[in-house]
Amino acid sequence: MSNLDSIFRDLVIANRILATEEVVDAYGHVSIRHPDNPNHFLIARSLAPDLVTADDIVELGLDGQPVGNEKRTLYLERFVHAAIFEARPEVTAVVHAHAEDILPFGIADATRLRPVIHSGSFVGSEVPVWDIADNFGDTNLLVTNMEQGRDLAKCLGGNNVALMRGHGFAAAGRSLIEVVRMSVYLPRNARALLRAKQLGGRIRYLSQGEIDARNRGYSPYSTETWRAWEYWANKAGVGDLLSRPEA
Amino acid sequence: MSNLDSIFRDLVIANRILATEEVVDAYGHVSIRHPDNPNHFLIARSLAPDLVTADDIVELGLDGQPVGNEKRTLYLERFVHAAIFEARPEVTAVVHAHAEDILPFGIADATRLRPVIHSGSFVGSEVPVWDIADNFGDTNLLVTNMEQGRDLAKCLGGNNVALMRGHGFAAAGRSLIEVVRMSVYLPRNARALLRAKQLGGRIRYLSQGEIDARNRGYSPYSTETWRAWEYWANKAGVGDLLSRPEA
Amino acid sequence: MSNLDSIFRDLVIANRILATEEVVDAYGHVSIRHPDNPNHFLIARSLAPDLVTADDIVELGLDGQPVGNEKRTLYLERFVHAAIFEARPEVTAVVHAHAEDILPFGIADATRLRPVIHSGSFVGSEVPVWDIADNFGDTNLLVTNMEQGRDLAKCLGGNNVALMRGHGFAAAGRSLIEVVRMSVYLPRNARALLRAKQLGGRIRYLSQGEIDARNRGYSPYSTETWRAWEYWANKAGVGDLLSRPEA
Amino acid sequence: MSNLDSIFRDLVIANRILATEEVVDAYGHVSIRHPDNPNHFLIARSLAPDLVTADDIVELGLDGQPVGNEKRTLYLERFVHAAIFEARPEVTAVVHAHAEDILPFGIADATRLRPVIHSGSFVGSEVPVWDIADNFGDTNLLVTNMEQGRDLAKCLGGNNVALMRGHGFAAAGRSLIEVVRMSVYLPRNARALLRAKQLGGRIRYLSQGEIDARNRGYSPYSTETWRAWEYWANKAGVGDLLSRPEA
Repeated sequence: MSNLDSIFRDLVIANRILATEEVVDAYGHVSIRHPDNPNHFLIARSLAPDLVTADDIVELGLDGQPVGNEKRTLYLERFVHAAIFEARPEVTAVVHAHAEDILPFGIADATRLRPVIHSGSFVGSEVPVWDIADNFGDTNLLVTNMEQGRDLAKCLGGNNVALMRGHGFAAAGRSLIEVVRMSVYLPRNARALLRAKQLGGRIRYLSQGEIDARNRGYSPYSTETWRAWEYWANKAGVGDLLSRPEA
Repeated sequence: MSNLDSIFRDLVIANRILATEEVVDAYGHVSIRHPDNPNHFLIARSLAPDLVTADDIVELGLDGQPVGNEKRTLYLERFVHAAIFEARPEVTAVVHAHAEDILPFGIADATRLRPVIHSGSFVGSEVPVWDIADNFGDTNLLVTNMEQGRDLAKCLGGNNVALMRGHGFAAAGRSLIEVVRMSVYLPRNARALLRAKQLGGRIRYLSQGEIDARNRGYSPYSTETWRAWEYWANKAGVGDLLSRPEA
Repeated sequence: MSNLDSIFRDLVIANRILATEEVVDAYGHVSIRHPDNPNHFLIARSLAPDLVTADDIVELGLDGQPVGNEKRTLYLERFVHAAIFEARPEVTAVVHAHAEDILPFGIADATRLRPVIHSGSFVGSEVPVWDIADNFGDTNLLVTNMEQGRDLAKCLGGNNVALMRGHGFAAAGRSLIEVVRMSVYLPRNARALLRAKQLGGRIRYLSQGEIDARNRGYSPYSTETWRAWEYWANKAGVGDLLSRPEA
Repeated sequence: MSNLDSIFRDLVIANRILATEEVVDAYGHVSIRHPDNPNHFLIARSLAPDLVTADDIVELGLDGQPVGNEKRTLYLERFVHAAIFEARPEVTAVVHAHAEDILPFGIADATRLRPVIHSGSFVGSEVPVWDIADNFGDTNLLVTNMEQGRDLAKCLGGNNVALMRGHGFAAAGRSLIEVVRMSVYLPRNARALLRAKQLGGRIRYLSQGEIDARNRGYSPYSTETWRAWEYWANKAGVGDLLSRPEA
């Protein structure tokens, strides 16, 4: 049995960090696969991430439906998470958000979002853009059923991040800490690339070899990774919830 | 009889949210049509929105003049509200503000402001630009009488938002919650469009069908709508004033 | 005799507002002409504006030298103030600051800073750019004597604001409230113009008639003017220092 | 013997200022050469700068290895500091950080970062761009050994700042106060230059004579220099740690 208390606390921390770092506002959500049952995942009920506490976390199946007798209102777009967990067994945590500075890259088609800064490397060398209109025509742009979620997951493929046209992004990580970090640095990478384009000339993107080298060195509980998680949690006012696994 | 206490509290919340989200500073205002008398509306006396309490709310007629024995100084531009309420019986709430990031779209004429992100859809597909100089020549740019207000309302027509050249915007909503939300996401949509233009290439705007689909699904007290209102109110420090009607 | 206590409090408020609104950081300063002696002015000793209290205010002559037995270190650039007060008898208050968003307009020569938004009108239709190198060659860019101050004042002429190349701006107002307001809205006007240029097409500047109309309607203690002063003071944490003259 | 307590407090202040001014987030670090042993330097253990206290400071040699029985985890990139202290005997303090707004200048090759504002003058007239890939091929972009550190120090040469492609910058100063100030104003100078380029036309950079004039006038404990240090320390919540040497 896993320590569920600690996982609930981590998920609360993740919610608060994403709000404080302005990756989410009232909308956007983060989930983690259930440690004891890979066919379930944990996510908040329909509530702004900045207000989420452990009591607000619900357990859903890979069809996006609640497990047990859950009656509270759920996020309309929980199918983003369900479909990615279904398609990608190695994925442990998912974020869906509308972070403002990635939006232009899903709207304009002349510049693809790619890593230009080392902290953006975990985004990976391919960031596909999913347009819900391609297969579903005129919608409210929200991913509100498994069919739409699976279409998004298919577009994401084996990548870490997909942009969603006129809407936001979905990110998949090997750990909760990784996906939160990726979500915080994704907009920063987007801003750096936008401004580099404004300065003009040749853009020096990270090479595939650099992206691979950084990826190989990644560990969710290394001192370097923990440093950011600890910093962001304290900045978000939930430093007291931190618990670090023994190395 | 409506619960006026609850409406006054909602209007205080709206003022504080608009200030915290930097839609207004010392200037800009929000109003709501009187629930028991469609020929009256409620708005703060001349005071910065961030300082408004229930005691600061005054009742005005559709001519922009105070009802009863009101002696306090009123907003010079209350005629923006009066004229829109007069022209649009279905409108329940109005915001006028100078949010910085929409200003460029009223100053430069090469790019029209249109929805590019899903949260910007309520702006609608047409955002006319009203130039007070067209019919009133050289003024201080403020809407200080009914004639100017009616000219603005005519330009707004059946749309939700009009830009005011070199000045700001006026937004009209079916509910207070809707018009506040529209006012918060309008500058975000403007920033996303400006940056998408900087990235270059084809811009993928929301289609008319997408705008319509989102509009059909809107409800002021849905869980999704409430989520943002609750979040913004807490962020603005007035979470204790929240009251949600029974579903 | 004027109420000097109230003037000292106003100057403290002005310092704190300029810091909170990010017009100044550790550098930049605001002064007011002495109400009883037009050949003296009041300004803080060399201290970051956000830390200024009434005890830090010193009295200087129009030569920029201290009156009486003042031993504390003074701002190196107090000559900006001295020279403008000397040249412009009708000026009551001066700000010198390095507000970031006006800097590009003193560095690049293709776009002149002019009012494009109504709150920017008090800047006036001419904003000259003063380059200290024109008459003083290679300096540290600071205005450290009366000769340099007078050269700047000459470039300012009868205008309200001069940009200083690679350095900042100097603003002169009819009242402390006016010059603070001008200093807060100057960077906003600069941002609106920069972004309008990015959107492209024709830029609709305020007309001379509009600038004049707004100027005619200005009064430092009107309800509208006071509203911003009161708001900014509260936001800066010095609302308790506010004192409003009887109308 | 130097007052080590006071130096530890200054280093804590420097860490907190860099965090509050958003030069660093969880990553980035600042060091000071040991006052009694030029072959040692002081830096925090691996911890986010905003969380650093005096107890977190460790002493390292110019090979980047800990002195004595230090067992705590160290910054991976401490070799940036070691190699610069080794190569530049006159350097007393070093910052390495990823400040967002300098990144574009290390990514795009059409615009070189040079001083355009007076507060940016200490950057110096040459800001070389170091690309780790030139001599080390595909890495994780981090400076994790002395060989890489020395290559960076060689590129830095006698300059004050080197950009690191896709990563950040390294800055070297004659005093801790100077290098912190340089690190705060470096991104501001970068933003001013980026926006000046957007306005178009000829860019007026600081002349070599202006850079030299400012440099000659610099003193780490002058009233002007102290003013910023005192302001930033108070803003960062560590004003109580300030101690100013007698003049």
